[in-house]
Amino acid sequence: MSFELKAHLEEIIPLTDQEFEPIIAHFRLKKLKKHQYLIQENEPVKNIYFVIKGLLKATFTDANGKEYIIQFAMENWWISDFRAFYSNVNSITNISCLEDVELLAITKENLDKVCAEHHKMEHFFRVKNSFGYIALQQRILSLLSTSPRERFEQLSQQYPQLTQRVSKTIIAAYLGISRETLSRLTAKV
Amino acid sequence: MSFELKAHLEEIIPLTDQEFEPIIAHFRLKKLKKHQYLIQENEPVKNIYFVIKGLLKATFTDANGKEYIIQFAMENWWISDFRAFYSNVNSITNISCLEDVELLAITKENLDKVCAEHHKMEHFFRVKNSFGYIALQQRILSLLSTSPRERFEQLSQQYPQLTQRVSKTIIAAYLGISRETLSRLTAKV
Repeated sequence: MSFELKAHLEEIIPLTDQEFEPIIAHFRLKKLKKHQYLIQENEPVKNIYFVIKGLLKATFTDANGKEYIIQFAMENWWISDFRAFYSNVNSITNISCLEDVELLAITKENLDKVCAEHHKMEHFFRVKNSFGYIALQQRILSLLSTSPRERFEQLSQQYPQLTQRVSKTIIAAYLGISRETLSRLTAKV
Repeated sequence: MSFELKAHLEEIIPLTDQEFEPIIAHFRLKKLKKHQYLIQENEPVKNIYFVIKGLLKATFTDANGKEYIIQFAMENWWISDFRAFYSNVNSITNISCLEDVELLAITKENLDKVCAEHHKMEHFFRVKNSFGYIALQQRILSLLSTSPRERFEQLSQQYPQLTQRVSKTIIAAYLGISRETLSRLTAKV
């Protein structure tokens, strides 16, 4: 029984313990240590993951070996290489742990099953996916139209926890700026 | 009866004419001429729109009056200010027609109703939203890690129609580069 996942689902759908039982049965607990990999580039992706505890980063490495951060995930977030998961292709990202993590994993087959058997869960993921879409649209807008300083300030405001839990090198990679540029910005903030 | 929408839904869910009838009843046909606005900044957004015919752009204008293109939409795409629509806030974008358009509009109330009454439709939008999420993640990756030339080549490959139907000024705004940079790139391609 995961109280974290139940509380998370209940932000969108009402759910009794009786209803939650067959749902949680489709998830599997997974624990990883700091620095371990959850997903590796060029491999198939069988699960999406709900974060009970800890912090992870999803990265993409270009042909020149430069690393870009696509996504962070911490408590109550979902993470995977979603393209690989949904489209049944190999991952283009690496996902690794910035802290020790506890996750709940669900396979594509079980996700489809749980959504087909529980209309409520289909609703949950429809709404959740639409929020995810909106968040990414905001990030695109931010990448197109704001300065590095504004992007750092937005991130600090939106996720104050994150900027405290993550090194400046990693924050810089997320913002698409150099470590030096970020140092200059934070020195003045 | 919109054959376009039915065919679009059937890419994800099987649907008889009998099943489609109460669904399409929740949509309303809307026609606009080239240059007309579908959604205006600072106004509430009551609908999402399925494009039957034509081409639109969603733009954001920053404090200095510079315009950024968030999204295009053409036949079989969905468009709106999704953040305003789902979160019940005012639009931060303008959506206008680059060609004469025919759209099917559905309100938030009717979308929720149609999804609650037809589990199939909830499934359709869950899957559709996850594809939308993946597409935006690809665009973020592209903005972070590729050169303007690569971005233009990706766009031309992915949507050959689009680069033919839209002016170079607008393509440049979408790619986040100047009109002059784009001209240099396309001269060499």
